[in-house]
Amino acid sequence: VTGAALGPGAEFDLIRRLTAGIDDAPPGVTLGPGDDAAVLDGGWVVSVDLAVEGVHFRREWLSAEEIGGRAVRAALSDLAAMAASPVGVLLSLAGSEADHADGTLEAVGRGGRAAAAACGAAVLGGDVTRSPSGLVVDVVALGRTENPVRRQGARPGDGLWVTGSLGLPGAVVRCLERGTPVGDAARARFAHPRPRTAQAAWLAETGHLRALIDLSDGLAGDAGHVAAASGVRLVLEAGAIPVAPGAIDLVGGDEAAALALHGGEDYELLAVMAPEFDALAAGYERRFPRVGLTRVGTVGAGAGVTLRTPKGERPLTGGFDHFGGEAS
Amino acid sequence: VTGAALGPGAEFDLIRRLTAGIDDAPPGVTLGPGDDAAVLDGGWVVSVDLAVEGVHFRREWLSAEEIGGRAVRAALSDLAAMAASPVGVLLSLAGSEADHADGTLEAVGRGGRAAAAACGAAVLGGDVTRSPSGLVVDVVALGRTENPVRRQGARPGDGLWVTGSLGLPGAVVRCLERGTPVGDAARARFAHPRPRTAQAAWLAETGHLRALIDLSDGLAGDAGHVAAASGVRLVLEAGAIPVAPGAIDLVGGDEAAALALHGGEDYELLAVMAPEFDALAAGYERRFPRVGLTRVGTVGAGAGVTLRTPKGERPLTGGFDHFGGEAS
Repeated sequence: VTGAALGPGAEFDLIRRLTAGIDDAPPGVTLGPGDDAAVLDGGWVVSVDLAVEGVHFRREWLSAEEIGGRAVRAALSDLAAMAASPVGVLLSLAGSEADHADGTLEAVGRGGRAAAAACGAAVLGGDVTRSPSGLVVDVVALGRTENPVRRQGARPGDGLWVTGSLGLPGAVVRCLERGTPVGDAARARFAHPRPRTAQAAWLAETGHLRALIDLSDGLAGDAGHVAAASGVRLVLEAGAIPVAPGAIDLVGGDEAAALALHGGEDYELLAVMAPEFDALAAGYERRFPRVGLTRVGTVGAGAGVTLRTPKGERPLTGGFDHFGGEAS
Repeated sequence: VTGAALGPGAEFDLIRRLTAGIDDAPPGVTLGPGDDAAVLDGGWVVSVDLAVEGVHFRREWLSAEEIGGRAVRAALSDLAAMAASPVGVLLSLAGSEADHADGTLEAVGRGGRAAAAACGAAVLGGDVTRSPSGLVVDVVALGRTENPVRRQGARPGDGLWVTGSLGLPGAVVRCLERGTPVGDAARARFAHPRPRTAQAAWLAETGHLRALIDLSDGLAGDAGHVAAASGVRLVLEAGAIPVAPGAIDLVGGDEAAALALHGGEDYELLAVMAPEFDALAAGYERRFPRVGLTRVGTVGAGAGVTLRTPKGERPLTGGFDHFGGEAS
C-alpha cells in the first residue's frame, strides 16, 4: 500500500518529489511508487521504460530491430524484478520523417514485437508518432503475479545473491565507444538481454525470497535501492562478485570488475534470500545450470551499500551513466 | 477479447502490423489492441500517450508545468474514452542536461502531478532520464471501469453525439503559429484540456451508450476509427457540428468549421447512442449545462465517414497533423 524509499541520485530525488505524499495509495493499488513497478488489484504489475536515442542506445551499435527488442527486454526485466510473469506490452515509437519513410520505425516495432513474443508477451497496443530528432521507444510492461516481491523485506543476516554474471554489457559499450572489436557472442549478450523471469519465479517459490531488484543501473546503485527500501545495509564481497569472463577478455580484469559494480544494463537479478536458502542453492544450479547464481554478500544493520575487500570495507555509491561517466 | 479495426492512416497501418495476430488476447486481457486502451481482468484500463517536443507541444507556447499537465490530461482522456475513471499515472520524463539543471524537468513533473491530482489520479511511479534534444513526456494512464465502452458497437440508426464544442484548441495553435493574439480564456482551454470522465460515466449509465472515442485527432479521423471498428458508416451533419464560438472569434467561421472537423486535440467525446437516448438528452444538459452535448449525425450502413451538407454528402478522410498540414 505504500511507496518504497529509493537510493541516492538526482533523478531519484525528482521521482521522489513527483510521487511524494501518496503513501496512501488509491483504492485498488497495492503497491505504489519506488519499486520496479506498480501493483494493482488482481495481481497486475505495470511498469514503464523510456529509451531515448543517444542516451539508452545508439543506432551505430544496434540494428533497428535490436533497438526495439532491447527496449522490450529491458522493460520485461522490471516485471521479473517483481517475480511477475509478462503478459503484454504497449509499445510507443517516435522517429523522424526519415525513420517513418525508410522503414526504420517499422523495424524497431518488429524487433519489439519479436522480443515480446520470445518472452511470452503480446503487443496489446501502443502509439506511433513523429520525433523531430532521435528515436524514442517507450515500453509499458504488463505482467501478473500472485505474490509481488518488493525491494523492501531484506533483514540483517539475509544473503545477497546475483543471477548470471555481470559487466559484459558494460564492457561491450566501452569497446563500442572506443572502436575496439567485440565478438559476436558478447555483442549478442548486449543486444538481447534476457529477463530472468523463470529464475525469479523459482526463487520466489522457495519461500525464502525477501527482496528482489533487477540490475539495470549497476549492482552498486541497485543494491542502494534495496538498502534504502529495506532500511538495512548491504555488504558486498568484492571477491565474490561474478565478473563475466567475456568482460575480462574485452577490457581486462580491473575495468571488468568496476563495470560489474557500476556498468549497468546487466538485467540480472539481485535477490535477497533468507539464510535458510543457502542449503537450497544447489537446487537452483540444477534447474538453471547455464545462468547460475552466486552469493555476493550479506545484509547487515545500518544503511547504504559497502564493499568488503581484503583491505577493509568501503562505502559504495550509485552507478555510472548508461554510457559511461559518473551519473549526474 | 479481440482487437478493433483502426481507421485509415500510415501510423495506424504500423500499429496494425505491430499488434497483428493477437486476436486471441492473452489470458486476463479482455480487450487488446486498436481501442483507446487495453482492458485487463479486474476492470483495469491501461493506456499510454507519448508526447514529443516539436510534435505534440512547443515550449514557446506552454510553460513547463502546462506541458506536463497537458500530457497527463490527454492521457486521462483515453480513459474517459473507455468510460473508465482515472486511478493513477506513471510519468516518464526526458530532457536535456539544461532541462535537468534549470528545473524545467521538475516543473514538467510538477505540472503533471497537479493535473493528475485535479483529475483524481495519483502519480504511482515513473522514470526520469536524459534526452539529447527535446523534452519527452510519456504518460501511462491507469483507470478502472466495470463496463468498458469500446469503439465498436455502433449500429445503423444510432445517433452521434459530441460533448462540448470543437475547434478552439486547433484555432489557438493556428494563432500561435501565426503570431496573432490569443485571449487568456482560449489559451487556457488549449493548455488545460479536461478529460470528460464524468460525462462518459453519465452516458454509460443511461444504458444507451453503444460506442465511444475521445477526439484527439479531429472529429473526422476519430469518427473513422469508430466506423472501422464498428463496421458502419458515420454520417456527420455539417450544420450540426458544435463549432466553438471562441474558434470563430480567433480564425473566422470557415477555418473554425474546418478545425472542428480536422483540428484535433479537442479531447471531447464522440458518443454513439442508441435511438432511445434522444429522449434523455435533456437530462444530460441539466447535469452538465456548461459542457453540453450536441447531436451531430447518424450511423448508417456502409463504411467510412461522410459529411452531409445542403449540397449533398461527401466522404471525409482523416485529420490534419497536430500542428497543421495534412497528416502523413
